[in-house]
Amino acid sequence: MPGSPTTPESLATTPGELEERANAAATAFVEWSTLAPRTRARALVAAADALDAAADELIPIAMRETGLTEARLRGELKRTAVQLRLFADVVIDGEYLDVRIDYADPQFTLGPRPDLRRVLTPLGPVLNFSGSNFPFAFSVAGGDTASALAAGCSVIVKVHSGHPELSQRTGDVVAAALVGAGAPSNTLQLIVGQEQGVAMLRHPRIRAGSFTGSIHAGRLLADVAAARPDPIPFYGELGSVNPQFVTRAKLDEDLESICEGFVASVASSAGQFCTKPGFLFVSDAAAAGESIRVAAEAVSEHRMLNPRIAQGYQQRRAEVLATPGVEVLVPGTVRFDGDGQGWVTPTIVSTTVATLASSGPRLLDESFGPLAVVVQYEDESQLADLARRLFPGNLTGGVHALLDESSPELVALIDQLRQCSGRVLFNGWPTGVAVTPAMQHGGPWPATTNDAGTSVGTAAIGRFLRGVSYQNVPQHLLPMVLRDDNPWGVPQRVARAGESTTWGERAS
Amino acid sequence: MPGSPTTPESLATTPGELEERANAAATAFVEWSTLAPRTRARALVAAADALDAAADELIPIAMRETGLTEARLRGELKRTAVQLRLFADVVIDGEYLDVRIDYADPQFTLGPRPDLRRVLTPLGPVLNFSGSNFPFAFSVAGGDTASALAAGCSVIVKVHSGHPELSQRTGDVVAAALVGAGAPSNTLQLIVGQEQGVAMLRHPRIRAGSFTGSIHAGRLLADVAAARPDPIPFYGELGSVNPQFVTRAKLDEDLESICEGFVASVASSAGQFCTKPGFLFVSDAAAAGESIRVAAEAVSEHRMLNPRIAQGYQQRRAEVLATPGVEVLVPGTVRFDGDGQGWVTPTIVSTTVATLASSGPRLLDESFGPLAVVVQYEDESQLADLARRLFPGNLTGGVHALLDESSPELVALIDQLRQCSGRVLFNGWPTGVAVTPAMQHGGPWPATTNDAGTSVGTAAIGRFLRGVSYQNVPQHLLPMVLRDDNPWGVPQRVARAGESTTWGERAS
Repeated sequence: MPGSPTTPESLATTPGELEERANAAATAFVEWSTLAPRTRARALVAAADALDAAADELIPIAMRETGLTEARLRGELKRTAVQLRLFADVVIDGEYLDVRIDYADPQFTLGPRPDLRRVLTPLGPVLNFSGSNFPFAFSVAGGDTASALAAGCSVIVKVHSGHPELSQRTGDVVAAALVGAGAPSNTLQLIVGQEQGVAMLRHPRIRAGSFTGSIHAGRLLADVAAARPDPIPFYGELGSVNPQFVTRAKLDEDLESICEGFVASVASSAGQFCTKPGFLFVSDAAAAGESIRVAAEAVSEHRMLNPRIAQGYQQRRAEVLATPGVEVLVPGTVRFDGDGQGWVTPTIVSTTVATLASSGPRLLDESFGPLAVVVQYEDESQLADLARRLFPGNLTGGVHALLDESSPELVALIDQLRQCSGRVLFNGWPTGVAVTPAMQHGGPWPATTNDAGTSVGTAAIGRFLRGVSYQNVPQHLLPMVLRDDNPWGVPQRVARAGESTTWGERAS
Repeated sequence: MPGSPTTPESLATTPGELEERANAAATAFVEWSTLAPRTRARALVAAADALDAAADELIPIAMRETGLTEARLRGELKRTAVQLRLFADVVIDGEYLDVRIDYADPQFTLGPRPDLRRVLTPLGPVLNFSGSNFPFAFSVAGGDTASALAAGCSVIVKVHSGHPELSQRTGDVVAAALVGAGAPSNTLQLIVGQEQGVAMLRHPRIRAGSFTGSIHAGRLLADVAAARPDPIPFYGELGSVNPQFVTRAKLDEDLESICEGFVASVASSAGQFCTKPGFLFVSDAAAAGESIRVAAEAVSEHRMLNPRIAQGYQQRRAEVLATPGVEVLVPGTVRFDGDGQGWVTPTIVSTTVATLASSGPRLLDESFGPLAVVVQYEDESQLADLARRLFPGNLTGGVHALLDESSPELVALIDQLRQCSGRVLFNGWPTGVAVTPAMQHGGPWPATTNDAGTSVGTAAIGRFLRGVSYQNVPQHLLPMVLRDDNPWGVPQRVARAGESTTWGERAS
């Protein structure tokens, strides 16, 4: 997605404040990271409750600052609160700690083995850059914050300039709730300003970064994190075009509902989702075009998040429309109001595989907004190879097929989508990302800067942890979760003495 | 550790060969990554068996090329084979896949939840830069190779110039064994040459890198990986000084055995270990010095790995000896033979906390070789803070204390060592790293470029995997490990319908 509004000088965090907050985050970390799981979980639930309670205050601010609808924002706020509660459960479960205990083994195959106990430990203060398009779910109290807090890290959020007032109020509400439930002061803090964000990412106190936004900004920040004297992990969620592939048989049977679903997914929240389906591959673009036109007529105008994003969209749309070989199915509109806000309806075009392949980034790059491309393919046997060549890194990829289809072409396509994306959908649309243990939201570059992580779902917590082993440390000096009496009842995976003698035998 | 011998032009991989091997690795990956677990495990065991069988051929080459002793090398080869067998078991267990299944849930708290199934999937071809100091265990068939192969990745090893013939023979033996057991050709390949390694790290086919070596080279390669058009994960294991702290009570009771253990750990394999204890903090350096002198007398001369490393050690040792405030406990020796090989005995010096803190990198940097510093401290209450300030990133840190000690100073020190290292030892020496599920070999920068990983132990496999979710995909199109009938019997963690209604309740 393109750039963001500039922050007024007066609101920006000063260098002195940056230093104070970095140090305060380090101080908070010491206490927050060592709280009992139930205390940390209670603080997360308190934050969720406080968000729910503040809904009627926060929603109108969010509507004004982002142009998103009340229904959408209420859903998003609920999701944000639910996410905090889910992570509270993760903290109490303790499975995420991946506790491993190897009992001492005098008969170990390589000579006596010491008692070894490994646990994942939080990294330290985390800096989150919040996104513009999810003012709750990928912002101050969103997934990155929830997972870092759950991991035991203190958090500094670089607020998004598109919703500064909402960010401040959300920060106040959540920080107060955390402290009220026993968290140390400054477990969650905010900073304002783009340069300030970069400066903080370079600060020695910061031990990891996360980000949701454009490829341009994400790459810049990833490079900053990697170029530090001590490089730190940086989890950026950047661009994705989420290609969808419809088999011939499925199109024949469900043409209309597929086209309706596609338009709804493209148009939802003015297409301002990293999971918006940017490409729909069909065997009959003319027939699909008809149904898409009908479905698009019902879509009403939607405000975009901010003037800069609307201007970027206007430009990108013009570029796509002017590409040779592109036909307009639904022209769509872009209109600017007196406040400079852009209002849009969907633009959907069609082209052929040949044109798509030859036009390069001009068509293949993400269009952040309600624009999508229908691609006419000749033969299903092309699809896996097209996915490989044209879409090397995406958050999601989808197939639409009959439930009993199992052609080699379909099998190959699904396997290719696994290789080039983080989530493979069947007969579904990628927008609407479930917050659950099995969700993966992250994929090969440029979908994310680091596809070892997910930014949605409980596996997101792993981004802010690293392993540490204790060797022969007496029980009373071990962390609670590594002790034999296991007072917090976390899952412990145990390797008993004598096991090494049979290693490799199961393979034969 | 310092630089390495130069590779003769004639042995270096040509640009054409680099391209061929990258493509061959990508081809091999397609098949290797989709083999049934038992087949992949069998291939790993076959590689282990082949290494064992080739011991009498490989060991003499290793002795000649590295100067390490036969006993050490036989132990290391055994460890390398055992490691492959351990990873074979990991592959069959399937726990490493972290399979998560969320059943569809029409009552899900945020609206109907689809069926979601998540598994870790291999990244693609991996490039390993092998280390000089473990010609088996961190080289062609070492931990990085074993864990990447176990993950389902094909592997290209950039061989170390210090043991070229051994690398080639090991590569031949292991590659043949893999193919003989059903692996595709080119599952394991070698390349030769430093520039060639850098070029390969930039190759689009390579999806991850790993490395064991110096901070200088590791940083350079980490920067190359991060600067690619598509950044890839890079797991480098660099420098570490492994500080050891002895409580006053422990020194009083076990002075002699501590000093003996320290000298043995410093001198082992001429101190050419990333886990060599570089610093020993004691309350009475004079008393310790006496016992250390006695222990050091028994150490015989040992050849260093190669002339460049010996020259680097000679220089580094001179720098330490010339540092104001440093007293010599054991002068040690460096002697070059007619072949230019360096032969050494341990050099052990002592200093005070004040001198150490004020002399900076001159004393604090790693000395790759049998040199260590005994540091006289005044008060145990200093130690945690010293660890924090002077040793921010290490593979290991150790305390030596009585079994029933539990002073606040000791508790604080152990907690600090957790924060600044990957393994905390109690009454033990860091050299000799057990290959087990609970081992952590990796720590904050500069111990490793990325402390999310470990390069020893079964958790090492996670470095070469990323998550992928399948949404509503019919059973017959799912990977085996995600199917309800679970034909390979891997652990599946299931979230059943209805669970979301109670999220957060456990915290209250």
